[in-house]
Amino acid sequence: MLMTAADYRESLRRLAPRVFVNGQRVACVADEPLLAPGIAGVGVTYDFAHIPAHAALMTARQGAAGATVNRMLHIDETPTDLLRKLEAVRLVCQESGCAQRYLAHDALNAIHEATRLADDETGSAYHQRFAAYLEHVQAEDLALGIAMTDAKGDRSKRPGAQANPDVYLHIKERRADGIVIRGAKAIVTGAPYMHELLVMPCRTHLPADAACAVCCAVPVDAPGITMIAKPAGRPGEAAAKFSAKYGQSVAVVLFDDVFVPHERVFLAGETEAGGHLTTGYATHHRHSCIGARAGFGDLLIGAGALMIEANGLDPDRHGHIRDSMVELIKIVEGFYACGVAASVYGTPGAAGTFTPDAVFANVGKLLLSTQIYDMHRLAHEVSGGLVVALPGPDEDHNPETAASLAAVLAGRADIPAARRMELARLMEDLTASHQAGWYSVISLHGGGSPEAMKREIWRNYPIADRRAVVEHLLDRGVLDEGRRLSRQPGRCCASGCEMPAPLPAIAE
Amino acid sequence: MLMTAADYRESLRRLAPRVFVNGQRVACVADEPLLAPGIAGVGVTYDFAHIPAHAALMTARQGAAGATVNRMLHIDETPTDLLRKLEAVRLVCQESGCAQRYLAHDALNAIHEATRLADDETGSAYHQRFAAYLEHVQAEDLALGIAMTDAKGDRSKRPGAQANPDVYLHIKERRADGIVIRGAKAIVTGAPYMHELLVMPCRTHLPADAACAVCCAVPVDAPGITMIAKPAGRPGEAAAKFSAKYGQSVAVVLFDDVFVPHERVFLAGETEAGGHLTTGYATHHRHSCIGARAGFGDLLIGAGALMIEANGLDPDRHGHIRDSMVELIKIVEGFYACGVAASVYGTPGAAGTFTPDAVFANVGKLLLSTQIYDMHRLAHEVSGGLVVALPGPDEDHNPETAASLAAVLAGRADIPAARRMELARLMEDLTASHQAGWYSVISLHGGGSPEAMKREIWRNYPIADRRAVVEHLLDRGVLDEGRRLSRQPGRCCASGCEMPAPLPAIAE
Amino acid sequence: MLMTAADYRESLRRLAPRVFVNGQRVACVADEPLLAPGIAGVGVTYDFAHIPAHAALMTARQGAAGATVNRMLHIDETPTDLLRKLEAVRLVCQESGCAQRYLAHDALNAIHEATRLADDETGSAYHQRFAAYLEHVQAEDLALGIAMTDAKGDRSKRPGAQANPDVYLHIKERRADGIVIRGAKAIVTGAPYMHELLVMPCRTHLPADAACAVCCAVPVDAPGITMIAKPAGRPGEAAAKFSAKYGQSVAVVLFDDVFVPHERVFLAGETEAGGHLTTGYATHHRHSCIGARAGFGDLLIGAGALMIEANGLDPDRHGHIRDSMVELIKIVEGFYACGVAASVYGTPGAAGTFTPDAVFANVGKLLLSTQIYDMHRLAHEVSGGLVVALPGPDEDHNPETAASLAAVLAGRADIPAARRMELARLMEDLTASHQAGWYSVISLHGGGSPEAMKREIWRNYPIADRRAVVEHLLDRGVLDEGRRLSRQPGRCCASGCEMPAPLPAIAE
Amino acid sequence: MLMTAADYRESLRRLAPRVFVNGQRVACVADEPLLAPGIAGVGVTYDFAHIPAHAALMTARQGAAGATVNRMLHIDETPTDLLRKLEAVRLVCQESGCAQRYLAHDALNAIHEATRLADDETGSAYHQRFAAYLEHVQAEDLALGIAMTDAKGDRSKRPGAQANPDVYLHIKERRADGIVIRGAKAIVTGAPYMHELLVMPCRTHLPADAACAVCCAVPVDAPGITMIAKPAGRPGEAAAKFSAKYGQSVAVVLFDDVFVPHERVFLAGETEAGGHLTTGYATHHRHSCIGARAGFGDLLIGAGALMIEANGLDPDRHGHIRDSMVELIKIVEGFYACGVAASVYGTPGAAGTFTPDAVFANVGKLLLSTQIYDMHRLAHEVSGGLVVALPGPDEDHNPETAASLAAVLAGRADIPAARRMELARLMEDLTASHQAGWYSVISLHGGGSPEAMKREIWRNYPIADRRAVVEHLLDRGVLDEGRRLSRQPGRCCASGCEMPAPLPAIAE
Repeated sequence: MLMTAADYRESLRRLAPRVFVNGQRVACVADEPLLAPGIAGVGVTYDFAHIPAHAALMTARQGAAGATVNRMLHIDETPTDLLRKLEAVRLVCQESGCAQRYLAHDALNAIHEATRLADDETGSAYHQRFAAYLEHVQAEDLALGIAMTDAKGDRSKRPGAQANPDVYLHIKERRADGIVIRGAKAIVTGAPYMHELLVMPCRTHLPADAACAVCCAVPVDAPGITMIAKPAGRPGEAAAKFSAKYGQSVAVVLFDDVFVPHERVFLAGETEAGGHLTTGYATHHRHSCIGARAGFGDLLIGAGALMIEANGLDPDRHGHIRDSMVELIKIVEGFYACGVAASVYGTPGAAGTFTPDAVFANVGKLLLSTQIYDMHRLAHEVSGGLVVALPGPDEDHNPETAASLAAVLAGRADIPAARRMELARLMEDLTASHQAGWYSVISLHGGGSPEAMKREIWRNYPIADRRAVVEHLLDRGVLDEGRRLSRQPGRCCASGCEMPAPLPAIAE
Repeated sequence: MLMTAADYRESLRRLAPRVFVNGQRVACVADEPLLAPGIAGVGVTYDFAHIPAHAALMTARQGAAGATVNRMLHIDETPTDLLRKLEAVRLVCQESGCAQRYLAHDALNAIHEATRLADDETGSAYHQRFAAYLEHVQAEDLALGIAMTDAKGDRSKRPGAQANPDVYLHIKERRADGIVIRGAKAIVTGAPYMHELLVMPCRTHLPADAACAVCCAVPVDAPGITMIAKPAGRPGEAAAKFSAKYGQSVAVVLFDDVFVPHERVFLAGETEAGGHLTTGYATHHRHSCIGARAGFGDLLIGAGALMIEANGLDPDRHGHIRDSMVELIKIVEGFYACGVAASVYGTPGAAGTFTPDAVFANVGKLLLSTQIYDMHRLAHEVSGGLVVALPGPDEDHNPETAASLAAVLAGRADIPAARRMELARLMEDLTASHQAGWYSVISLHGGGSPEAMKREIWRNYPIADRRAVVEHLLDRGVLDEGRRLSRQPGRCCASGCEMPAPLPAIAE
Repeated sequence: MLMTAADYRESLRRLAPRVFVNGQRVACVADEPLLAPGIAGVGVTYDFAHIPAHAALMTARQGAAGATVNRMLHIDETPTDLLRKLEAVRLVCQESGCAQRYLAHDALNAIHEATRLADDETGSAYHQRFAAYLEHVQAEDLALGIAMTDAKGDRSKRPGAQANPDVYLHIKERRADGIVIRGAKAIVTGAPYMHELLVMPCRTHLPADAACAVCCAVPVDAPGITMIAKPAGRPGEAAAKFSAKYGQSVAVVLFDDVFVPHERVFLAGETEAGGHLTTGYATHHRHSCIGARAGFGDLLIGAGALMIEANGLDPDRHGHIRDSMVELIKIVEGFYACGVAASVYGTPGAAGTFTPDAVFANVGKLLLSTQIYDMHRLAHEVSGGLVVALPGPDEDHNPETAASLAAVLAGRADIPAARRMELARLMEDLTASHQAGWYSVISLHGGGSPEAMKREIWRNYPIADRRAVVEHLLDRGVLDEGRRLSRQPGRCCASGCEMPAPLPAIAE
Repeated sequence: MLMTAADYRESLRRLAPRVFVNGQRVACVADEPLLAPGIAGVGVTYDFAHIPAHAALMTARQGAAGATVNRMLHIDETPTDLLRKLEAVRLVCQESGCAQRYLAHDALNAIHEATRLADDETGSAYHQRFAAYLEHVQAEDLALGIAMTDAKGDRSKRPGAQANPDVYLHIKERRADGIVIRGAKAIVTGAPYMHELLVMPCRTHLPADAACAVCCAVPVDAPGITMIAKPAGRPGEAAAKFSAKYGQSVAVVLFDDVFVPHERVFLAGETEAGGHLTTGYATHHRHSCIGARAGFGDLLIGAGALMIEANGLDPDRHGHIRDSMVELIKIVEGFYACGVAASVYGTPGAAGTFTPDAVFANVGKLLLSTQIYDMHRLAHEVSGGLVVALPGPDEDHNPETAASLAAVLAGRADIPAARRMELARLMEDLTASHQAGWYSVISLHGGGSPEAMKREIWRNYPIADRRAVVEHLLDRGVLDEGRRLSRQPGRCCASGCEMPAPLPAIAE
């Protein structure tokens, strides 16, 4: 059952999470104005699945004869799936800035694989259990929040050495029917308006910290859960041309002895599989982030083009304006290309899940995480100073100033002053508001810091192959019969097994 | 008479400008909460002049036997003056982020020189007239707003070709006793809480647009002036650790047939001198901006160091954190060095005013204008994600959440959670709020766009000397007796004329 | 018939081009030591086609039932072809630095399409004629040089306005049986050791310059052709660990009234089709360059890893060394990803040739063209100063110094000093020799300057779609039924036509 | 006695060092063609001191009543001295690319201070001894080589843990009349054509490695010294428009039990003072490097301007060309400004020597070390592909090709083809030859790697002051009476002590 955005919003009424925003308890999440832009953002992923032109991207069939599910809840079975997910994320984020729901995809795929690894190592039966949960999630078309980043406390100390053990979420008690978890997750995107939370470890834990290697699913209104959330976007602000409509809430989520029955527990102390889970999630998520920020980049490119026009300029005649636009495009398509390559070179795991190539996914995320700042700069370069000079929207209806302002702030004669002002406010909203600041930081640190990505690139790079190329050159001096390109596609078995699925097959 | 910040605020009561903020008419500027951070920011330049340790930087003697005046109103007579002004601006901006008042310095110096040029060219007597005005300004220790950037309309058209002539401020009428000016200036920093406005042209105009080449001084409450201003900083916001205290208002200023008596008119149609005025102002202002943004950089460096510590990290042990800090320092001190060099190589004009070296001043401003975005990035890199994850200050007093939040959001054990949260909010305020966005855009476009600076660098660079070096190498093959280093100091005559004033002589 | 490198070298004896190198006439190209590294470089493309492990990349079947041809001479029929060609280029350039022969691929594909366009526009029969030529080239497994870049003379003037008309190659005379061409092509890669030259226009010409819009094939020893070539690599230099073995010659080629029979003429005055030819070639070639420079990057990465080890350092313990290696990887895989994406989003032309996506291809080439300098820097960062401090190889056999030098220049104890010195020389050869300089400049300007790529990105970018995203957001406020992602795959016709070929299917 | 270049070259005949170049023993350094460009480069520092227009920069008076000495041998007594030295280095390097002799300045100044520190700590009398040596050096106007960088062996091990102790130069024996030193210095600039070598430690040694903390002076032909040198520049190469004339040799210098009498020993085991010496030298040297590479930058800027013109282009009309030129200028003047600021904020040590500000000096060196690669790139961007396409100079006199080549390779009609070709070769020499590669690596690693500079910036930065600014803001909320700008000039005592010397006083 694929819900619409309206269905989704209504479905939230069936839950009663304990949520605070700006110091006030939220009576009804579905009706809370401070959260409305976030709900709208998630809603895009529901509604787009019903638009025929987007169906090939926004939905997918799970398995050869499986159900049609939302792309955001689909387990990737081919490189093509990875590419379509990437494009789907770009599509929804063009509309909503950040659609939030792709985090569910990233977590589901990682758990799908990590539970298999845990079972293989320890003889557990997590994978089967998770398969049932997955079916439930897909069938109900749920929105899932990812509770991963622990509060961490003193960053130079491991979990067990913290003054307050609750800075890492951990298993406090193991019962016959399930486990009790306790602690804080510091930044959970969209938490208040999700149906359930997926709890996951945020790093590979040492055996001594095995209690932190826990993965499970809990409803948002499970007893003991408290969410302290920020407003989503800039609700109610007239100047917020974009983020009054779409936004993202983030919440600190406190787990005060929350009971989780066994059928919702997917890891409970398996540190090695937990490490794989963290890494797997990170790889999927960095891949998704690439699509998301490309969608955001599309908004900047479009807004820049319109602003240039409203100012009376023409990139074909003003080389430095064109140069900045091309630089902006170069950044956006440059990191997006890494997402495409990560899809093409994706590889299947033990459970059959296709995971993006880790080097390309991390390179792409690293590029976007640092270049989001350049994207803001370039958007400002092409837009001019009106972005911050323009008085606020309260002046628009001030009878003593509105007409005069409109008269002097017009740009090109055939474009109304009001349009130019609207564009300037949109640009400010996207690049110079606190929402823009949020985009910067979340791009930089969301899904891991730049340093984390650098280490992951180094860990995954086929450096031995590169050394072999040079050693071959220096030592053997003959053509190598066996040397292979390590970043090449095709890892099928020797005996002519089937090829990866056809790639860009989208029927319009 | 050097006023204090309190004197200055009181003095604003003697004026009654027509100001709107957020759609409302401001009854009393001195008491308006939405403008208070701006007044506090300017106030720093007044109070620091009374602090003995800062006196050598913050005050200066005008002429050998002249009065002691605020550095922000001083005409530079030596390279040392330029250097001290640069340092004074850094000092006040370390405190206030942007002290705003150095714009007055930049304009006064430029007018001082441009009026001499106009007189030399046309036989006018502007310079004498301006000298009297300068004495008045210095004696009264005034705050002056710079009304320079025209609204510009369609940017591809010159003033005379605009649909609405008022998009450029121009002389509408010449009377026996003065002139009548009309039009709009689009972005005037601090306008509402200034004593007077200095009207200046924003480009070199063609003779056909001579009516726009006007420079004059008007009180902020002159009949016909309306200011539509934005709030200064983030007044009243509990999360705004910095910008609730200090901020800057910018205003669109409408001149609806404002009369200016001759004694306050310093240019009225002299397009060539007007061009020199624009360029001269730009050079001084870019030099000042270097000091200002270095002061802002100091805040980021300090806040970053404190945030790292609160997170439990140590740059001496975590190389990537140190690397980001060093990168931040490299940027700040790198562009500041250009300000120092522009001071050392400053040159005197026809009226004796020392102007910073144009190449160094423009290179420094160009570096800061694009690297402000990198500064934000680096500040985020060292601070971590708490900057945007932290719930708002309303939670701090929520009895249902405050204690739990504090418990899980603490970092290093010996630093209170409240301190860490305060630092995170400060960092958000400086780098991820709409105030941070304002700093970005104003750094990029304030004092001219990057393209304007590039053209100015090219126009001023001693390219002929560089060619000569190479031609000499290729053609003559002998050592050159006469070739000189064009970026070297010392342009005094051969016969042992006096040296430029001693440089770094500051008595504590 | 797929030749081996030895076959290829022998085949050159059947031609007698007029070639000068270093001021001397070359008696026999196949035996000329100064050209040997170039012949070896091209030879790699022949030999690798015979290595079973590389066959899937290095060969291709032309058409469903066509002959198996060298990948470097293959017309791309699917996105998969584009991807395999990209990988094939990377593979051969890992071995040879720059295999040169992919230029033939780029030209053949572009002519294949441009002749169809010309025929469609003018009713000519070039395409059929070219098809016959293509079959000949593939059957003979020829090496083809691309004579494209005109000498250009005064760059501010068009061809017809030049003092010397020969600075652009042009049709001097049209005869019954063919045409006579005259002029100079300024930089033809590998010219002396090619079998034939493909003459092509280097820009879209105005109708007045139609005589320059000429495309044809000529044997290298056609009467009237003179080649003034540079040595390939660093032949005979003991220190040239890499480029004594592999290199590239470039030549100025003078056409002194060269007759070309009709069957070898593929354009003769069609300026519009000529423009398409130039653009099509540029797009293919930039795509190929991405693969080529990635192969070169692999050499740097491998050499860097070995050098670090020989110095006794370990990237896992020395963070700044790892950081530089990751940065190098980020650059190489970052631009390579653009090549992958350009393949995936490649589109078929009128003649069925698949052309890489122009935006991704140009972004990738733009990235590599400027970042090749950073690649050198990073290689130097990880290698240390020995790269330039090491005395030349003549010392290695100097009985008075060799032993002492070896004793003091050893690094890690278990790696012989001779190995460390060999690696330092290899690194110098790749990054600090005149060969390295050649790689820089050819990366920057080969296939068009950065400015050319920027203009092409702008010209091809779906800016209207990006504007539509924003206009939709501002104006309609409802979800868009029809909006499509313009960088998405799948451009098949409405009626369920066939999908692009499966992508990463390479049998080992 | 100030020598001329001719005097200097003759003076080399009085020495008989054991030098090998390219495997051959050099019979007479003064007459060796392979070293001639290096001798010419050093010669510039001698001849320029005799040019009246350069005297103020190139000479200095040591002490109030002291002798006039070459600037390259002068102990800095004021910030003005530092600035003049910086400018002098830029001046000589505009002519010679790298004048080499400023290393002597850097070492003499550092030893001047370090010997005082050693005496203060240990009661030794090194400073007095060094003063006598300094007088000798200045009186004889010597050229001194700096033997600092040890071979280092396995870089992960300290000196005492190396397999071969000779990879670090060390005191092998202490005798009644002096010491015996042994080991290798890996890269000594200009060694063969120096008069004496200054041996210095390359790091702060642990007490266990005290034998390596040695500083002394030895004649280049002291018994036991062997130099294995590389040719200076590109001697005898017709294409080397610049580096056939000027170049730099570097040598590995082996010390095989070299005796040094006490009067030439300036440190012998004092590890702490040795650390100061290393750091002091590094600071001076990085400051000098800034001047040197600015001079090299001037050559690139000039050559670029001439090349653009010869190509028929005009930066005023072709924005992207101007943009690249401005970028090049921005880099060069940007790092040069750091040298200026380091001079202005220089501080006196215990012995009165003025040392450049360490933060500015290191920032400037860090900027140039990484941006030298960008300088090459920008030079290539503005020059076009002819830089590598042009056939070698042997073609210039080939009667079969020279005329044709000249005809087609001409650019702008009023500039001879020969001139354009000469410029292209100059540009290749400066940016794409092995000499250019040398400039890259030496800029990057000479005077310490980028990582060394980053650590030094961090070690010297007034981070406590920056924290204080923020703590003040958060905690006290009142204006600080005592806070000072830590990067400000003026550190004189309260009681009106003398000011630093006047700055830019240069008589022409």
